[in-house]
Amino acid sequence: MGETAADGIRFFCRRRVEGGATDAAMLGHKGANLAEMARLGLPVPPGFTLDVTLTRRIAREDGMTPETMAQIGEAVVLLEEETGARFGGPGRPLLLAVRASTRRALPGLLPAMLNVGISRPVIESALAAGEDAAFLWDCYRRFLHGYGHLVLGMTHEAFEYELEDFREALGLAPDMPLEAAQLEELAGRYEELIAEAGGGPVPEEPREQLHVALLAAARAWNSPRVREAQRLYGVPTEWGAALSVQAMVFGNRDADSAAGVAVSRDPVSGEKALAGEYLPRAQGEDIVAGLRTPWPITEEERRRSGLDVPSMELSMPDAFAALLKTVAMLERHYRKPQNIEFVVEDGRLWLLQALPARLGPAAALRAAVDMVREGLVSREDAILQVDPYQLEKLLHPVLERAGARALARGIGASPGAASGEVVIDAEEARRLAAAGRSVILVRPETTPEDIPALQSVRGILTARGGMTSHAAVIARGLGIPCVAGVGVLEIDSAAGEVRIGGRVVRLNEWITIDGASGEVFRGRMPTRQPALSQHFHTLLEWADAVRSLEVRANADTPREAEVALEFGAEGIGLCRTEHMFFGTERLALLQELILSTDPAHRRDVLQRLEAAQGEDFRAIFAVMAGRPVTIRLLDPPVHEFLPRSDVEIETVAKRLMVPPERIRARVTALMEYNPMLGHRGARLMMTQPALLSMQARAMFDAMRALSAEGRAPSRLEIMVPFIMSAVEMARMRAMFDKAAEAFARDTGETPAYTLGCMIELPSACMNADAIATHAAFFSFGTNDLTQTVLGLSRDDAGRFLHIYLEEGLLPHDPFVSLEEAAVLPFIDMAVRKGREAREGLLTSACGEHAGDPRSIRLLATCGLDAISCSPYRVPIARLAAAQAALRSRNDEAN
Amino acid sequence: MGETAADGIRFFCRRRVEGGATDAAMLGHKGANLAEMARLGLPVPPGFTLDVTLTRRIAREDGMTPETMAQIGEAVVLLEEETGARFGGPGRPLLLAVRASTRRALPGLLPAMLNVGISRPVIESALAAGEDAAFLWDCYRRFLHGYGHLVLGMTHEAFEYELEDFREALGLAPDMPLEAAQLEELAGRYEELIAEAGGGPVPEEPREQLHVALLAAARAWNSPRVREAQRLYGVPTEWGAALSVQAMVFGNRDADSAAGVAVSRDPVSGEKALAGEYLPRAQGEDIVAGLRTPWPITEEERRRSGLDVPSMELSMPDAFAALLKTVAMLERHYRKPQNIEFVVEDGRLWLLQALPARLGPAAALRAAVDMVREGLVSREDAILQVDPYQLEKLLHPVLERAGARALARGIGASPGAASGEVVIDAEEARRLAAAGRSVILVRPETTPEDIPALQSVRGILTARGGMTSHAAVIARGLGIPCVAGVGVLEIDSAAGEVRIGGRVVRLNEWITIDGASGEVFRGRMPTRQPALSQHFHTLLEWADAVRSLEVRANADTPREAEVALEFGAEGIGLCRTEHMFFGTERLALLQELILSTDPAHRRDVLQRLEAAQGEDFRAIFAVMAGRPVTIRLLDPPVHEFLPRSDVEIETVAKRLMVPPERIRARVTALMEYNPMLGHRGARLMMTQPALLSMQARAMFDAMRALSAEGRAPSRLEIMVPFIMSAVEMARMRAMFDKAAEAFARDTGETPAYTLGCMIELPSACMNADAIATHAAFFSFGTNDLTQTVLGLSRDDAGRFLHIYLEEGLLPHDPFVSLEEAAVLPFIDMAVRKGREAREGLLTSACGEHAGDPRSIRLLATCGLDAISCSPYRVPIARLAAAQAALRSRNDEAN
Repeated sequence: MGETAADGIRFFCRRRVEGGATDAAMLGHKGANLAEMARLGLPVPPGFTLDVTLTRRIAREDGMTPETMAQIGEAVVLLEEETGARFGGPGRPLLLAVRASTRRALPGLLPAMLNVGISRPVIESALAAGEDAAFLWDCYRRFLHGYGHLVLGMTHEAFEYELEDFREALGLAPDMPLEAAQLEELAGRYEELIAEAGGGPVPEEPREQLHVALLAAARAWNSPRVREAQRLYGVPTEWGAALSVQAMVFGNRDADSAAGVAVSRDPVSGEKALAGEYLPRAQGEDIVAGLRTPWPITEEERRRSGLDVPSMELSMPDAFAALLKTVAMLERHYRKPQNIEFVVEDGRLWLLQALPARLGPAAALRAAVDMVREGLVSREDAILQVDPYQLEKLLHPVLERAGARALARGIGASPGAASGEVVIDAEEARRLAAAGRSVILVRPETTPEDIPALQSVRGILTARGGMTSHAAVIARGLGIPCVAGVGVLEIDSAAGEVRIGGRVVRLNEWITIDGASGEVFRGRMPTRQPALSQHFHTLLEWADAVRSLEVRANADTPREAEVALEFGAEGIGLCRTEHMFFGTERLALLQELILSTDPAHRRDVLQRLEAAQGEDFRAIFAVMAGRPVTIRLLDPPVHEFLPRSDVEIETVAKRLMVPPERIRARVTALMEYNPMLGHRGARLMMTQPALLSMQARAMFDAMRALSAEGRAPSRLEIMVPFIMSAVEMARMRAMFDKAAEAFARDTGETPAYTLGCMIELPSACMNADAIATHAAFFSFGTNDLTQTVLGLSRDDAGRFLHIYLEEGLLPHDPFVSLEEAAVLPFIDMAVRKGREAREGLLTSACGEHAGDPRSIRLLATCGLDAISCSPYRVPIARLAAAQAALRSRNDEAN
Repeated sequence: MGETAADGIRFFCRRRVEGGATDAAMLGHKGANLAEMARLGLPVPPGFTLDVTLTRRIAREDGMTPETMAQIGEAVVLLEEETGARFGGPGRPLLLAVRASTRRALPGLLPAMLNVGISRPVIESALAAGEDAAFLWDCYRRFLHGYGHLVLGMTHEAFEYELEDFREALGLAPDMPLEAAQLEELAGRYEELIAEAGGGPVPEEPREQLHVALLAAARAWNSPRVREAQRLYGVPTEWGAALSVQAMVFGNRDADSAAGVAVSRDPVSGEKALAGEYLPRAQGEDIVAGLRTPWPITEEERRRSGLDVPSMELSMPDAFAALLKTVAMLERHYRKPQNIEFVVEDGRLWLLQALPARLGPAAALRAAVDMVREGLVSREDAILQVDPYQLEKLLHPVLERAGARALARGIGASPGAASGEVVIDAEEARRLAAAGRSVILVRPETTPEDIPALQSVRGILTARGGMTSHAAVIARGLGIPCVAGVGVLEIDSAAGEVRIGGRVVRLNEWITIDGASGEVFRGRMPTRQPALSQHFHTLLEWADAVRSLEVRANADTPREAEVALEFGAEGIGLCRTEHMFFGTERLALLQELILSTDPAHRRDVLQRLEAAQGEDFRAIFAVMAGRPVTIRLLDPPVHEFLPRSDVEIETVAKRLMVPPERIRARVTALMEYNPMLGHRGARLMMTQPALLSMQARAMFDAMRALSAEGRAPSRLEIMVPFIMSAVEMARMRAMFDKAAEAFARDTGETPAYTLGCMIELPSACMNADAIATHAAFFSFGTNDLTQTVLGLSRDDAGRFLHIYLEEGLLPHDPFVSLEEAAVLPFIDMAVRKGREAREGLLTSACGEHAGDPRSIRLLATCGLDAISCSPYRVPIARLAAAQAALRSRNDEAN
């Protein structure tokens, strides 16, 4: 045959390698990486790949043209030449593996069919040439299984049950190998199974087998099961699949043969030590299938496992040495820890696949840092190598699950795990927690009035809400676990019980929640707090040197500010003053302010609130010691602060010395239909200017008290929430100028601050240029912006959002990961317009998205100056910001 | 003096006219129109105007430069030459009037000071020259009053009380003129008043008086009172004021002198007949002040009034004839009915001002049509001449108020007036109304469940909500009056009473509401239903010939469709299918559908709903007989349909044969925090696809049933509400394709329809191009778009919106008149993007704004194809659309 590549067919052979790692789009990740490894001179069995275009054509035309068949025939001839074996014999036969893959690895999802080319006539011819009978029949029965599954759509179980029955009838232990005659009989039974399933006779001609396998594998890309998986993994159908055809090497050939998987670093500790499993006399699927227990590769692992089996290190020392060398070479080449599939045939090592290893979070960190120190990769590589989503697991307690069955699963809304008694009343929760009991607060949902309770419980479980529900946001801020939106949770206070998926849990019974997985368990389960390693700090220091985004934290209390500093925040980007009102005493004052109509009383209340807030600001400024602090004016709708229960209403009525009915009527009048779009943010300041002056004075005064000691913020940034228009911002600016002048008159000191606003409304984005003329900075409230741009209430979206995600109408939960098609363009527009109108306008994002790596990457594309997230996510944000910076440099370089 | 205009001074004299009607921006509307009339040769007393720039400079510098003073002095010399009198005497004195005006007429708001130039020495000199003493002292006391008010800030009342006391002490009847000696004494008292007020001596030098008057009038533009008025009338402070200085003519000179106002058409009927009032021996302010009753101008009016006084027609025939001629000339010139202020001095007519007349709605219509027929104006002029806001008053009953005092005032949310018994329970309201009683439903707010009641009551009164609250929208759709947001309304069902501003109204007591003014009255008051005149129809026919926007109606019932056709709608632009679910029986079915978990029961319910909706569609299609009909899929959040009361919950539970607690729990679970941003619109269709198929089948079937008779819509447009993204629209398109295919398979007939969507979300605007590839038309839901763009819940905005309006932070209620700075650009963006992606994309607006003339003008600038509004507003929309078309043509021509 000639040396010209046939249309759509690319080789990875010793003599001919076409393509490499960068060709995954055309060759699938398998085809591309096999070519890459062949090019490196690694021991890869020879083969060729039908590219995506050709595979798509085969699927569309539901068959192959004579030209394609001829080309494939010629390609097989090349494999025969390289392997010295003939496809279909005579003599020792060449068998082939067919594997589909797309651009990205989707483990176990795309079809493969092995041992293609074997049949009874081929076996006869091979036996005549002196090949091992047990090996040949084993290959044949494996082929029949694969054929039945891929071509005829039969289940794996059909064949596996047959095999189990057969072994049982023989009384064979799982590890005992079958003999040749037994395997021949088993193959016969498989043939019968296929005949019963209406599969007709299995083709005996090897080339026909190959054509059937290729056609079935090409078709599979559009099968319902794979289409579903594409949606799930966010893989566009347009990517298509490629089909790699490869000469089989046989881990099941004899006692000197084996199949295995290895990882270049310990997946749990990250230590530089080969880890993995192997099985002699096996093909790779045996390790995965779980019918036999695989054996450890290294002596070290064998010792640790206590298994009485030989390690590969001892039993196949040459192959093991080759494996060590190969793995080191792959790590150096791919600059990431490697996960490889290998086969030892007759003592010789072959590589079938190498993929980046999926290490645990601590392991990934350690491996990345170690590889820099080993000179294998650059710091930039190390930064890019760690998945920031994984970091989160290092920051919160994790559950030792050990196979426990969950009562129900909701949305893992704040990570970490916790056990505690079920309590459904917030006040009781606070009382019990104060008495040292462990409490899980179980509620339909939480409200701001529950905050004192939330601050003392171990975890939160709610029936409603999602990732950004009140409970979730508060829990993440507090760093306690929260499972939200457990639809099957019913709270029956009358019966003194909750029902979870129909099962009754009594009050004060223990449950355990896993805020990462969203699972709820009965009883108390052990948890473990991972220690932060030196590697953790090292990697983040490298990340800090690389990133251009400033990373701050959202912190409302001195405690949160401390955590933020521990995790490396450079300042506070969002201090929500409303959270300072949630202590019982202060909430009462605020309620009096809202509900009182007596000016003298209101003045008195304002003075007391000012004193309290001044204390809070002083304490936070002291912690932040000269770092920048952004304080947001009171934002939430009046609605949220209203007393609801009869007791609360009566308390307020008593304090104000009016009948409770008056208070109740006023509360009803102030309730809102859509509080999210209600009387909040800047609107509060317009209707209650006394609140603005009070907050301004409290800030200025706290600054003054601390500035002599250098503990006042280097930059006090005051932020007006929910700005709708430029004229509104201008008014706010004027009100602040007045408050500052008054303060200067009273104290002789002119307060230093800058005034900016949150951009949370489409109208503010549209008029960002005009607004910027009155604002020194913009901070994007991406939660509210998502709500208004998409018309989506985060507290209510749980009722339908899952369907949008399942059906692929939204790629991600837009409250977890910034929506890219509509919300991002609004941010981009506002940044652009704002900077046009004001040079040096500072822009940042302080919504929940600022702690989400994918969102940070998107936000970075808008050219923001800073992000501010929950203290517990600061490390994640630092890493993600560094990755965003590196990616953007790479994009520019390309 | 030379003939060169001094800087910033423009003349309107016989010999020299500078400027005209188009110069109002520089000369104020008074200066501009006095110049225009002088140019026409009309008898205008000569004068000059200090333009806006000069006036602004005087105010800023708080004084006049010597140059300006010299220029003014020279200008006065020209007036002396024209009038033959000298400013300050000797002999018959020239007195001056100083009047401020801005670009637009703001009646009574900007200052004027008359009789400037008189003083005791001037009077002495004039007496010596034989002038009338009573006349001179009258001018002097008037000057003192004006000086005290404008320069010293004294109240009018101070002088008026003094005058009344003086008359009472003399025992004089109001109409009896004062004699010279009495007037001299009065002037003395006024001088004392001024001295008591600390005003120091009044300047005697005429030029000093003039300077003081000009300075005070220039300053007034920035006075708190005028600034407040500027905000109220939407007049930018930057416009500034100009000061017109004019030779006085004296209606108070003698028995042959008078002051008066006249209108060129009857202000109530619109008939071509001069109307107006005059007073002999008076200055213009006397007519306004109300101390004397003015007399009718014409004999006809005098006869009708029954007053025993001489008409001007009889007593001053020459001046009357001149007035008739002048008025006719002004009408021809300005092409609008005229309102003029005039003076008769010694039998000779002088004009002081001519403004477009403010006629009543019927009168304005008739005058416009008549003027076309009289050849005075073109049809286009007539169309532009009528204020579309006025038309509304012709379409609804009006209250015969006769001085009644309102109990309270809320927001006039749906026009018309009605009386009825106070009922606070919706079910009882329905029962009483069915028994023929007149009912006003009084509620904190209304909900969709109240709709059956709303359909039968006379009017709605609510404590909460505004122009676009649920009650308001429904009421406007039904054409019944609604007063909303009466904050002082308390409903006490326990006591069986409501309290309005503290006053108790018992249940079943009668009240009257005026949905135009927002007033609430105790008892039953007469109302009047205006008949639609031929002029009405004529003008609208002309309008139809001119407009390019198609005008359709929002109609949900056959009755509304009929009204829509009567009022000239060209089709239905919005048929809200949810309103079809509001009958008690159907609401129950829908509740069962939402709450049932039994598939068989759900299927049964869907079939019954389908049959019911099919009936509704058939009936509406039959009325619309071949015109286009746009039907919107179910839109409101599930939330709105849930049963709330115990009775309702028990009913549903009984039907579904489950315990009420189950239903209650499910209802609680389905309640939403922000239903406006909740589970609604397209989201309902995604989670309940059976609802979509049901609605599709019902529409297709109704089409099929009527198409043979030509009564099916010429275009059935199906509209998906609340579309968020292109992929969502694509899914809707696919679901409809499937439903249509199924229908075709079942019936053999392929349904003809186009599928489009509502654009109500910023995300939809941002991605309008991608959405348009799946949608044949866009209809802007401007209410919801306003809510999401501005982050403003229309149901809650009442709590703070009034402050935004009062403080000038919003020029109009954005739910009444489309917000221009942010919402309009989103519409413009979506139209532009949509048309780029799909040629021939139809665009329309179907929110409440589509019935608001100002909003229609704005919408027209985006190039929409159609608007659709409440049936009762169709005439308004037709006129406003025609005006928009004419204005855009004019803009293009200029």
